[in-house]
Amino acid sequence: MTGEFHPPARILMGPGPSNVDPRVLLAMAKPMVGHLDPEFIRIMNNLQDLLRQVFGTKNPLTLPISGTGSAGMEAAFVNVVEPGDRVLVCIKGVFGERMADVAERCGAHLRTISAPWGEVFDLEAIQKELRGFQPKVLAIVHAETSTGVLQPLEELPAILKNNPDTLLLVDTVTSLGGHPVKVDEWGIDICYSGTQKCLSSPPGLAPITFSPKAADKIKKRSQKVQSFYFDMNILGKYWGSERTYHHTAPISMNYALLEALRIIGEEGLAPRHERHRRNHLALVQGIEAMGLSMLVPEPYRLWSLNAVSIPQGIDDPKLRKKLLDEYNLEIGGGLGALKGKIWRVGLMGYSSSEANVLYFLTALEQALREQGFEVPRGAGAIAAKEFFSKGK
Amino acid sequence: MTGEFHPPARILMGPGPSNVDPRVLLAMAKPMVGHLDPEFIRIMNNLQDLLRQVFGTKNPLTLPISGTGSAGMEAAFVNVVEPGDRVLVCIKGVFGERMADVAERCGAHLRTISAPWGEVFDLEAIQKELRGFQPKVLAIVHAETSTGVLQPLEELPAILKNNPDTLLLVDTVTSLGGHPVKVDEWGIDICYSGTQKCLSSPPGLAPITFSPKAADKIKKRSQKVQSFYFDMNILGKYWGSERTYHHTAPISMNYALLEALRIIGEEGLAPRHERHRRNHLALVQGIEAMGLSMLVPEPYRLWSLNAVSIPQGIDDPKLRKKLLDEYNLEIGGGLGALKGKIWRVGLMGYSSSEANVLYFLTALEQALREQGFEVPRGAGAIAAKEFFSKGK
Repeated sequence: MTGEFHPPARILMGPGPSNVDPRVLLAMAKPMVGHLDPEFIRIMNNLQDLLRQVFGTKNPLTLPISGTGSAGMEAAFVNVVEPGDRVLVCIKGVFGERMADVAERCGAHLRTISAPWGEVFDLEAIQKELRGFQPKVLAIVHAETSTGVLQPLEELPAILKNNPDTLLLVDTVTSLGGHPVKVDEWGIDICYSGTQKCLSSPPGLAPITFSPKAADKIKKRSQKVQSFYFDMNILGKYWGSERTYHHTAPISMNYALLEALRIIGEEGLAPRHERHRRNHLALVQGIEAMGLSMLVPEPYRLWSLNAVSIPQGIDDPKLRKKLLDEYNLEIGGGLGALKGKIWRVGLMGYSSSEANVLYFLTALEQALREQGFEVPRGAGAIAAKEFFSKGK
Repeated sequence: MTGEFHPPARILMGPGPSNVDPRVLLAMAKPMVGHLDPEFIRIMNNLQDLLRQVFGTKNPLTLPISGTGSAGMEAAFVNVVEPGDRVLVCIKGVFGERMADVAERCGAHLRTISAPWGEVFDLEAIQKELRGFQPKVLAIVHAETSTGVLQPLEELPAILKNNPDTLLLVDTVTSLGGHPVKVDEWGIDICYSGTQKCLSSPPGLAPITFSPKAADKIKKRSQKVQSFYFDMNILGKYWGSERTYHHTAPISMNYALLEALRIIGEEGLAPRHERHRRNHLALVQGIEAMGLSMLVPEPYRLWSLNAVSIPQGIDDPKLRKKLLDEYNLEIGGGLGALKGKIWRVGLMGYSSSEANVLYFLTALEQALREQGFEVPRGAGAIAAKEFFSKGK
């Protein structure tokens, strides 16, 4: 017989999931209702309203996909890409690579452009490809979870103005709820995210939004969407006024997301972003005071995910295991080309707190010292604490 | 600001979700951990062991897909079907139809055979098609949620013995945990289910299992699986010994499923099936004592989902609304061709109880009487109660 299980109370400062407010955990314990119950439909409507607010959009077609962030990526591509469609994917990390993989599986005529991992794209490079390739879809990651890079998107509408038929598809898995995301203002046509990062709801749903232009392309497809489960032509009717049965929505996950979005509403989006910014800046102060350095140059650092370069001679898995075993603290290692070269330290949603910044810096200092890396005693935490005090 | 939400405490006797044991609801409130945390990996291993037990299989490739039952169906087809593969789908209700739709979206060379809704397939008809069509995949629904029919599968291995290259793909969404399902004994190669029916975990995961033969076909595909999210060649590595990152598992949903499977382990599979059988038989006694009739003839009735023919002159939506509003009781209407013709009364998992049988019969009697349908007072509940008493 499998015994009762008691997951440890980790401090989650990896690339996600982040810690979840107890209010959100308890929301999942609310009684189960049917997926067509009038009370659940009311919850669906509230969810959609609140998602539009965090996405900064008026798009009617805005809803949570019943899967994790990767399901959001797949739902984005399978719906707007038909076999043979030209798709331009910008790759600067693992999730850009995954976009290219997913687009190819949809039968896209794929072209990719790359920037070095840890850097952002120069928009002129994208503009040049747009002119030559005339893609139906331009896909780019806003917050690259594998490198800690924030790709500025404010200038994209200007660059796309000569490509009125190109749909702009953006991954905001690690930015939504932690950084400003302005779907309508930035001219984004398809935008998806995950619940388990800066929204601080458990993993299991992928908020997504489609502009009227994207929705129109989906409606006018010449072939069925290759995925039934992610087919917005049917799914949109369940979340629209028809309420047609498509699949049984994950009721409890939707309760959790609603509570998480209510908490965001109470905090306010702008104060929430500012909290993420401040905690990130304090962490950087601490990291640099300890003699370590950040992978990403200053204006392009994610507030939600901090890529810290691992000093030479440090045993990465050993250090992370120590943090987990002795400090109950999870941070992430590098992915792909950055494996063994960086730590990925998340400050997302509920996990983005002054206490976590100080705790992490203190634990890291002790773990580094154990491996013979000299750190002035308390340097990181002292620098971060000073930063926090200044702002008050 | 969106206010706090309090879903009503419904008695869920529709086609799913079923009610969830409070132990399962509370399991979701356990602290969040990372999807590669050693403690979560232990939970994954336990989940896989317990899923193998309910599926009746030794298949190593057994795991919960991170989506609802429909995601399970899609994961089943996209992995084993390559474009041009001959696929034979047996249709006797909505979910058979959906299988055909999903297979077509995979580029299958599709052939379908049909049985009238509410009836089972004659296995000779299937055998004839097998001989002529020589499909790579034979797909059939065990428990057709739209009609309440249980398709016997015990004889399939005999019928398939001349088709050693055909994979048998079976939908057990509404049977697993309520009816015996014997994947290995019945020679099933791909079997999927959902958590929200007889397993009585919230909707959001789709248990699935692949035989070594099916796993081998997936490994030797000439093309990538068209879905990244459901690609067992990668997903199997996250759930296998490599633990390669694929997507962030829905942690809380997995906690819930583990607790639901632990409860099944405590009850025992055979006693659980017997409970489903008895409550179903009592319900039928009550239905017939009230002068109503079942859609499906006797040996083929699902224990978990009872299709009750709606008497002439009854306003179906009005009756179901009354049950929901005044009795907090959800039952399902008919789907597709059976819309307005049947009620679908679920007795699944936690919802399959003597109390629910009696409550439903009592509420139905009153709702019917309100619409002028004469029922001898208390007839249904009395007959069901007698049945329960006899067995003791």
